Amino acid sequence: MSTETGVRAVARKFHEERVIAALRAHGTLSRSELARRVGLSRTTLSEVAARLLQTGAIVVADTDAATRVGSGRPAERLALDPRSGQFLGVDFGHRRVQVAVADASHEIVAQGVETYAETTTWDERLLLAFDLIDRLGAREGLHFGALQAIGIGVPGPYTTHAGMPAVTWRSQVAPDGIGSGFEARFKTPVVVDNNTRLAALAEALHRPDAVQNLVYLRLSDGVGGGLVVAGRLVAGSRGYAGELGHVTSDPSGLPCRCGKRGCLETLASVPAILAACRAAGAPVETLADLSASAATGDPVVESILRNVGTAVGRVLGATAMTLNPREVVIGGEIVRIAPVIVEQAATTLRYDLHSIPSDRPQIVRAAHLTDIGGAVGALAAVFHQSPLLAGYQPADDSDHAKQLRRSTR
Amino acid sequence: MSTETGVRAVARKFHEERVIAALRAHGTLSRSELARRVGLSRTTLSEVAARLLQTGAIVVADTDAATRVGSGRPAERLALDPRSGQFLGVDFGHRRVQVAVADASHEIVAQGVETYAETTTWDERLLLAFDLIDRLGAREGLHFGALQAIGIGVPGPYTTHAGMPAVTWRSQVAPDGIGSGFEARFKTPVVVDNNTRLAALAEALHRPDAVQNLVYLRLSDGVGGGLVVAGRLVAGSRGYAGELGHVTSDPSGLPCRCGKRGCLETLASVPAILAACRAAGAPVETLADLSASAATGDPVVESILRNVGTAVGRVLGATAMTLNPREVVIGGEIVRIAPVIVEQAATTLRYDLHSIPSDRPQIVRAAHLTDIGGAVGALAAVFHQSPLLAGYQPADDSDHAKQLRRSTR
Repeated sequence: MSTETGVRAVARKFHEERVIAALRAHGTLSRSELARRVGLSRTTLSEVAARLLQTGAIVVADTDAATRVGSGRPAERLALDPRSGQFLGVDFGHRRVQVAVADASHEIVAQGVETYAETTTWDERLLLAFDLIDRLGAREGLHFGALQAIGIGVPGPYTTHAGMPAVTWRSQVAPDGIGSGFEARFKTPVVVDNNTRLAALAEALHRPDAVQNLVYLRLSDGVGGGLVVAGRLVAGSRGYAGELGHVTSDPSGLPCRCGKRGCLETLASVPAILAACRAAGAPVETLADLSASAATGDPVVESILRNVGTAVGRVLGATAMTLNPREVVIGGEIVRIAPVIVEQAATTLRYDLHSIPSDRPQIVRAAHLTDIGGAVGALAAVFHQSPLLAGYQPADDSDHAKQLRRSTR
Repeated sequence: MSTETGVRAVARKFHEERVIAALRAHGTLSRSELARRVGLSRTTLSEVAARLLQTGAIVVADTDAATRVGSGRPAERLALDPRSGQFLGVDFGHRRVQVAVADASHEIVAQGVETYAETTTWDERLLLAFDLIDRLGAREGLHFGALQAIGIGVPGPYTTHAGMPAVTWRSQVAPDGIGSGFEARFKTPVVVDNNTRLAALAEALHRPDAVQNLVYLRLSDGVGGGLVVAGRLVAGSRGYAGELGHVTSDPSGLPCRCGKRGCLETLASVPAILAACRAAGAPVETLADLSASAATGDPVVESILRNVGTAVGRVLGATAMTLNPREVVIGGEIVRIAPVIVEQAATTLRYDLHSIPSDRPQIVRAAHLTDIGGAVGALAAVFHQSPLLAGYQPADDSDHAKQLRRSTR
């Protein structure tokens, strides 16, 4: 997040955020009022304020002649700049890019979406995103010259580790250049992450008390997942964490596109479910057909969906036994069409967590069944990099989450 | 960790740790030198120093008459107090308690152990631990009047959430009173955690680069585990995280003491392995018998151990697919006796992680095969609560780990 390293960068960022918090709470303050409130020396405070003025996060709101110091200039009073886009959240889907802009106090001040064809190249997608950001700025009177950070969600596993081969069995994997494209355009640090993981973070922040421990599984063309542990998104050692779709569900099962057999994805992806229905003689070509079959209570389809729920519940049961989450969330269009999957998965999960005496996690349908919320997740990922937030106790994290929810309503 | 809450407590702790770091780096410093080095106002620095003097973390090293300010007192020069035990790590096993003492700079300055019978009550164990701490203090000339925090490891799941029923199928579960007993005796915040989890943290810190993502499994009388994610120990929403022994391994397997069937523990605990050998006609009553059988290459025993390795590898494979750790560590006396378990588990794990193209986690034997290191893990847990460390990047965390390793050699 910064070219500085170690404790110096942490301290600077920490002081900046306390100054921003004081201005958020009190509106306008002079430098000496600020120094007193956050307990910094005048020298340190002046350095911090100068940097915030330079990045555009704060502005000189007015000049108070009454507080003139000796024969010097009148004291300036500082405030947050509501026109300064400080954080960008960008979510690239297979067919659209979504953007959200937040100010220094993490309030979302603008958002928008642009669609494209699935065949659109990544270079073109980037240009469409830049264009969307420019239009948002013009429409809302925002400037982006002072961005602090950009969070970007992309489909598929993503790693910034140099020399990592792409996961060849994945289509639509975002190239390494995504992050550097945004860095070059906006001259600001960029965090890129898998958008299923960011959706998991958005789910956690969406809950009333900002769930600190959550497992998220999405059943879609593929099966993916995301983990929130102690309020933070889990990336793993190389960015592959949360690949619940490729946990082995049945060692002698169907071949998977990944090269193994019997991965959860071979049973629980939308194409796998439709194929299982057809193999059993049910005339189900699309999700709409499945919806119609499920509505009429076709016992063949019902049985297949229950098997899917059991397989999902086993994998989630092992995951929940391992991570002891408060909530287990299942997302994807299909869980709206076939709620029996969630119902059956919950039954299996309850059995698997039998040995935990009480307070088992809730298993619920995702709040965001479409992929809206990805840009909010991308913003949250950026906010979560903040050293101040990292030091916060859950109570404060939850205030932050409440604010995020309020600002997205 | 403190009765203060929110940003004020975080800021205070943050400033305290920077002052301690400055004194560690520079030996003795005056208050004005300290204020300059850490960028605090004289007022804030004086408050921070007063608190550190009061807790005994620092002392007035000398008084420099040459720096006398105006007509005031001579400037005092401050330093860390090497005689002040600032942190205690306590590890309760079934038959012994181990204690390690660290100073303000996290250096371990004393350690000791006291044995007891497995039937010893928890009240007696506490008294034995207090007595051991007193003797360590007398022997090493340490005082404990200024402890900042105590980390305590206990067998079995542990939760501080009020009203949580005990896990009734566990013997030797530590009572809720453990933490409050230490709090009452030492008037200091206490962190209590499961000692298998603390062993996981000790394993992570033991590795050359302080592994940030690690899965730890211990095969013993029971089967337990611990997870380190992004450099931090995972507790889960209610303190049950890491219960890998009760992940379902075979839904139609043997009944488990937890009430389910086919938990990993029913296949891979030491008693389960010995029972499987006996059921197959191998004369194996103890670990020593197993060691002898394994050494002669008894094919029945070898086959049973390979099955155990496969079951272990499946559960670890799913865990590794979920968490993408850098290392997977298997501990417990039995893996020294029967290395084939680790070997077979590694083979199974490699298959299960087939879809991750490279850089699969290493699967290795634990460094601490006996339970030494538990007290070090308990200390590490306390250090990890530090907001400054929480804000650190891995590079700094790894310095901290190096120091921990150095101080425990």
